[in-house]
Amino acid sequence: MEDKKEILAGIIIIGNEILSGRTKDINTSCLALWLNSIGVKVAEVRVIPDNEDIIVNTVNTLRKKLNYIFTSGGIGPTHDDITAQSISKAFDLEYEIHKEGYKILESYYKPGEFNEGRQKMIWMPRNAKLILNPSSGAPGFSVQNVYCLPGVPSILKSMLGGLTNDIVGGDPILSKTISLNTVESEIASSLTKVQNNNEDVEIGSYPFFQAGKLGVSIVIRSPNQKKIDNCTAQILSFVTKKNIQIVDRD
Amino acid sequence: MEDKKEILAGIIIIGNEILSGRTKDINTSCLALWLNSIGVKVAEVRVIPDNEDIIVNTVNTLRKKLNYIFTSGGIGPTHDDITAQSISKAFDLEYEIHKEGYKILESYYKPGEFNEGRQKMIWMPRNAKLILNPSSGAPGFSVQNVYCLPGVPSILKSMLGGLTNDIVGGDPILSKTISLNTVESEIASSLTKVQNNNEDVEIGSYPFFQAGKLGVSIVIRSPNQKKIDNCTAQILSFVTKKNIQIVDRD
Repeated sequence: MEDKKEILAGIIIIGNEILSGRTKDINTSCLALWLNSIGVKVAEVRVIPDNEDIIVNTVNTLRKKLNYIFTSGGIGPTHDDITAQSISKAFDLEYEIHKEGYKILESYYKPGEFNEGRQKMIWMPRNAKLILNPSSGAPGFSVQNVYCLPGVPSILKSMLGGLTNDIVGGDPILSKTISLNTVESEIASSLTKVQNNNEDVEIGSYPFFQAGKLGVSIVIRSPNQKKIDNCTAQILSFVTKKNIQIVDRD
Repeated sequence: MEDKKEILAGIIIIGNEILSGRTKDINTSCLALWLNSIGVKVAEVRVIPDNEDIIVNTVNTLRKKLNYIFTSGGIGPTHDDITAQSISKAFDLEYEIHKEGYKILESYYKPGEFNEGRQKMIWMPRNAKLILNPSSGAPGFSVQNVYCLPGVPSILKSMLGGLTNDIVGGDPILSKTISLNTVESEIASSLTKVQNNNEDVEIGSYPFFQAGKLGVSIVIRSPNQKKIDNCTAQILSFVTKKNIQIVDRD
């Protein structure tokens, strides 16, 4: 069976609050798990500040070399929300009121509550495609292969379901985890041999220390279940020979 | 009072496990908070895979444009740990056994336990400077302005104290948070005015939804306490006029 060409995505996390350490980014993980499930692999993540030139340059660099770009953050009503104007500039499109978006928010808010701040949220690049928001009204948007989502994790997550039909991925990326009661140095050379025998499978080794347990999780990733099964068998073979205990985790 | 020139850092998170979504990155936040406390601002974060060419290119791009680079991940004993060999290549240095590192690990492990896997951890770029590891023996290292740390968060964190004298920062970056019982759209235009009157202060607005409370945190950041105090006064002025309640948070 021939594997399909990989479909690659980039994630751009926009926000000074991540760079200052105040907020931990959990949107990358949420996006990556969802993308893997629809056959898209995340090739690169960049975290950048709320700065128009940097957003424009980063979007223009990544959108040309990857299949899909997802941005998170900067689409709210305040002065530091500059993603929509920056994307307009990146694509050289007018930044203007999105009529369909306007109607959505006009009916979402009570009469009199659709104020200037909220109206800012439907200023978008001309002809942007809306990404509907089932949590809090204000939509995201896409232009070509760039999908702009909010920074609040619960809202971002709620918007992914509506995007699944837009994103054309390859085979879902499958994974298998084997957790062992050992240390990495005990299995390093055997695991290297398995990796060398299976070059197109991604094998990762991750020490864990939690709840008083110490061990190593081996993660095997490929869109091809048979290749994962082959690797698993080769790993279990040396694990058995070395008399290493397999442990449950998570 | 003249503000000093900003000292800027880049963070490179190396690891397929972050890009796959399996692991959430918390090292960026840890590094950023520590860097801010010693007057260094994080300008950019990149998350990249365990791929030598990508590591070499990313390190060489960022180390030339920023004052300091910190990498996290890829310095363990397994086949997917390729940071040290990649940094050697980036700087065109021999990749070899570090004698001082060898002695440290030789005395750290019990006789007979300093096996091949563990010895891999002291293969480094020639003349790398060690970063001592008070948690688990194996040191990190630096070459010029690039500091290579492990991916396990507790170990990374334990190594930062030993680095404080190596990093020459500016004035610590101070911050003040004002949390309000309101929504962003209510304060957006007033906050824009404050930002426009205080261009060299970073003002962020972050909605929060937690434990049934909904509100907005305004974060004011600058190395200059007086500028933060001025901004705070201007924000409290419109908050009072609008009769918005200030709430405690965290």
